[in-house]
Amino acid sequence: MSTQKALAYLDGHREDFVGRLIDFLRIPSVSTLPEHQADIVRAAEWCARLLTNAGLEARVVPTEMHPAVVGRYRADPAAPTLMLYGHYDVQPAGDESLWNSPPFEPSARNGAIYARGASDDKGQVLANLLGLECWLKSAGRLPINIVVLVEGEEEIGSPSFGGFLKAHGAELACDDVLVSDSSQYKEGMPAITYSTRGLVYKEIELTGASRDLHSGVYGGVAPNPANILCQLVASMKDPSGRVAIPGFYDGVRPLEAWERQNLESLPYDERAMQEMLGVLRLEGELGYGPLERVWARPTLDVNGIVGGFTGPGSATIIPSRAMAKVSMRLVPDQDPTAVSAAFDQFVASFLEGHCRYTIRDKASCAAYLAPVEGAGIQAAKGAVKAAWGVEPVLVREGGTLPILPTLKQGLGADSILIGYGLPDCPVHGPNEFFHIEHFLAGIGTAVQFFEQYGRLAGDETRSAR
Amino acid sequence: MSTQKALAYLDGHREDFVGRLIDFLRIPSVSTLPEHQADIVRAAEWCARLLTNAGLEARVVPTEMHPAVVGRYRADPAAPTLMLYGHYDVQPAGDESLWNSPPFEPSARNGAIYARGASDDKGQVLANLLGLECWLKSAGRLPINIVVLVEGEEEIGSPSFGGFLKAHGAELACDDVLVSDSSQYKEGMPAITYSTRGLVYKEIELTGASRDLHSGVYGGVAPNPANILCQLVASMKDPSGRVAIPGFYDGVRPLEAWERQNLESLPYDERAMQEMLGVLRLEGELGYGPLERVWARPTLDVNGIVGGFTGPGSATIIPSRAMAKVSMRLVPDQDPTAVSAAFDQFVASFLEGHCRYTIRDKASCAAYLAPVEGAGIQAAKGAVKAAWGVEPVLVREGGTLPILPTLKQGLGADSILIGYGLPDCPVHGPNEFFHIEHFLAGIGTAVQFFEQYGRLAGDETRSAR
Repeated sequence: MSTQKALAYLDGHREDFVGRLIDFLRIPSVSTLPEHQADIVRAAEWCARLLTNAGLEARVVPTEMHPAVVGRYRADPAAPTLMLYGHYDVQPAGDESLWNSPPFEPSARNGAIYARGASDDKGQVLANLLGLECWLKSAGRLPINIVVLVEGEEEIGSPSFGGFLKAHGAELACDDVLVSDSSQYKEGMPAITYSTRGLVYKEIELTGASRDLHSGVYGGVAPNPANILCQLVASMKDPSGRVAIPGFYDGVRPLEAWERQNLESLPYDERAMQEMLGVLRLEGELGYGPLERVWARPTLDVNGIVGGFTGPGSATIIPSRAMAKVSMRLVPDQDPTAVSAAFDQFVASFLEGHCRYTIRDKASCAAYLAPVEGAGIQAAKGAVKAAWGVEPVLVREGGTLPILPTLKQGLGADSILIGYGLPDCPVHGPNEFFHIEHFLAGIGTAVQFFEQYGRLAGDETRSAR
Repeated sequence: MSTQKALAYLDGHREDFVGRLIDFLRIPSVSTLPEHQADIVRAAEWCARLLTNAGLEARVVPTEMHPAVVGRYRADPAAPTLMLYGHYDVQPAGDESLWNSPPFEPSARNGAIYARGASDDKGQVLANLLGLECWLKSAGRLPINIVVLVEGEEEIGSPSFGGFLKAHGAELACDDVLVSDSSQYKEGMPAITYSTRGLVYKEIELTGASRDLHSGVYGGVAPNPANILCQLVASMKDPSGRVAIPGFYDGVRPLEAWERQNLESLPYDERAMQEMLGVLRLEGELGYGPLERVWARPTLDVNGIVGGFTGPGSATIIPSRAMAKVSMRLVPDQDPTAVSAAFDQFVASFLEGHCRYTIRDKASCAAYLAPVEGAGIQAAKGAVKAAWGVEPVLVREGGTLPILPTLKQGLGADSILIGYGLPDCPVHGPNEFFHIEHFLAGIGTAVQFFEQYGRLAGDETRSAR
C-alpha cells in the first residue's frame, strides 16, 4: 500500500523531479579545480536542503577537503539501517568545444538530459534521494532507518573518506549501503554489480648515468635506463599474458559455477568491442574469455612511460633517467599489501646491482565482493524487476571503487550497486547524458527497494536473533 | 728548411694567434638559433678574410642554409691536394648561469681560453688555417695544393653538405682531408682517429585503441601499446647484450690483429669510468672489452620513450599511443640501408596483426674506416711526433661524423682526424675550453703535416703513375 502511494507521488512529480535534476546539474561542482570551491559548497547545501525538505535530519559536514552531506531518518531501532551513498562532485568538462551544448547548462533532447554529471553521479544519486521523498511525502514514513552520505571527493579518489568514516562511525552505522554509481549491462538489461576490482599503482624510476650521455661516445659501456626499463616491464608478463611476478596470483578466487554460467549467458560481441575500440584484436591472459579477464582476473598495465629525448628530431643521447607508471587491477581475494611487496621484490631482483631505482606507491585498494545471497542483493533484484519489468543481470565491474572495501572495513556494511545509466554514456568525456525515463525508473527502483529491503533485511535481522 | 721558417713564424706570432682565436670566439655563431643568422654570416666572413690575408683565394659560398667558406691554394697541378675541413658554427651556450665566464666573452685562465666553440671547433680549425698562414707568410709557398672548406651547419647535422659537395665537386676535388674535430686520447697522449661509427635512427610509434581507455573497464581486453613497446624493445637484445635483429651483424668487420694489440695497449680504467658516469657498472655486449664495444661493435639504444600519462599523480589509463626513438651505431662494413631494412622487418614480424604502428626514418649514415697505411695517416703520425714530442696513438671514435663517408663517396677522398683538444673538455656543455699550448701545438702540427703529407702523398701519387 505504502509503495503504491510512493509510486503515485512519483507519477505526479515527474516534471518537478526532472526540473530538480536540471537545477542540480547547473552547479559546476568540479572537485578537481580549486576555482570551483564555492560551487562545491553550493552543491552540498543543495543536497542537504533537498533532504531536509523531504523530512530527514540533514547537514553539511566539513571534512579535511570537500564537505560531505549527511542525512538521517530514524524509523525504529529494531529495523535495519540502509545507507544511501553517492557523490555530488563531478569531473571537469574537458574540451568544451567537443560538447554539443554547454556542460553546465543542462539541455533536454532525444529524451535525455545532457550535462556534466548527468549520469556520474548527480542523476543516479538524486534518483535514490527522491525515492526517499516519494515515501515520506506520501506514506509519511519509511519501513527502514536511513543514513544518507553524499560526498564531494569521489572524482579525486575520496582522500578524506577513510578519516571521515572513522570520525563519524557511530552516526554512519548501517547494515548495507545502496550505491548508484555503476551502469546497466546494456540498454534493456539492468544490472546489479556484486564485485569490483582493486588497484595497486606504482611509479618506478630508473637512473643510469648522472646526466644524459652521447650515444656514440658511450654507446657500448653506459647502462641505458630506458632499455633496462623496457626489459623490466616486458619481464613482468609471460608470453601467454600471465603476470610473471612470483606470488602475484596468491589468493585469486576462481569463479564459482553459477558465476561462470551467468557470465557465459551474457551477450558479449568481441568483434563489436574491437571495432568500438579501434584495435586489431582484443588481448589478455590466455585461457580466459574477455568478460572473465576484465571482471575476475587481475591485470598489469603501463599507464605511462617516459625517458630521454621525446621532442621532434633525433637527439642521440643515452638518457639519464626513465620512468614508468605501472598499475595492477586486483580481484577477490588478493591482498594489495602482499601484491605490492611482491612487485617491489620482483623489481629489486631484476635491478639489484644493475641500475639505481626508486619505487613510489601511488595507490593501494582491495577488490570487493558482495554476498549475493544477502538481503541487499535479493531486495535489489526484486526492486529492479518491479521497476523495469525485467530480471536484472548480476555483473562484476573491472574498475575500482575504493569506498566499498572502506565501508566494509569501517562499518561492516556490504554494498548493493544498482546502475540506472547506460554503459556507453561518456561519463568522463563530452556530451555526458542521462535518459529521463532511466532517471524516473531509478526513482521507482529506489521506492521499491526500500520496501523490499525492509522486508528481507528485517527477516534476516530477526532470524539472526 | 721551409718548415723551419714556418715554425719560426709561428713562434713569433704566438700572442697574435691567441688574439685571433679570441676574436673568432667572440662571434656567437650558433647555427641552431635563427636569431644568430647575422653572427653566422659574420663568422663565415671572418674566416674568408683570414684566408685571403694568408694568401689564398677565398670566398663565402651560399648553401641552402648557412654559408660555407671555400679557400683555394694552387701549388702545382702534379702535387697532391689536401682539403682542410672544419666548422665555424657552434652549439648554443645552454644555461649561462653554469658558466664561470660568459660563453661569448673568451676568458684566459689556467693556461686555457674558456668560451663556447673553443675546442669544438673554432680553436681546432683555426689551428690548421693558421698553419697555412705560417707557411705562406714565411716560406712564401706550400708544397701541396690546398682546398679549405669551413662549414656552418655541423652542429645541426650538415643538412646542406651533400648537396653542396655535388654542386661544387670539381672545385673541391682533393686526395685527402685533414679534419680537426676530434680529441686526444688523454692528456699527453695525442691521437689520430682512423674510424668512426655510423648511425641508423628510427622513431617507432604504436597505436592501440583510438583513445586513452579506463584501465579498470578495459584492462584485460584492450591491447596496451606501452606494454607492447616495452616487449618489442626488450626483444631487440638478447640476455648477453647482443642485438637480436636477424641480419644486424652482417658485414661487421672484426678487429685486425694489430688493432686488437693496439687497443689492449691503451689505458682504460673501467672503475674510473664507472665513477665518472655515476653508474653501478659498465654494460654492453658480453665477450668484448669496453673500448672494443664503443669503437668496433654496433649498439642499439633507446634515445627517448614516451606514452600515456606521465604527469604527477596516477591516472589509470591504458594509453592510446606509445613512441620510442631507437638508434643503432654501426661499424665498418655494415650497410645502413640493410640494417634499416632488417630493423623494419623485425618490427613488422613482432607487431603484424597485433598492433598498428609507424616507423619514421630519422638518420642513416655509414661508419668510416681510413686506410691506416696511406700517406695521410702516416704523415699525421710524423707531424704529431714532431710537434708534440711523442708518438700519437691510433684510435677509433664511437660517435658518427656523417661528412666522412660523404667526402669519401662524393670526392673519393679519405680523411685524417687529428685531435688537439682533450677528451674531458665539455664541448657541448658549460665552460668549454682549449689549452693555449694545445692550440699552438696544433698550429705546429699543421705546419709539420703539410710538409710530411707533401712528401708522402707525392711519393704515393708518383708511384701510382
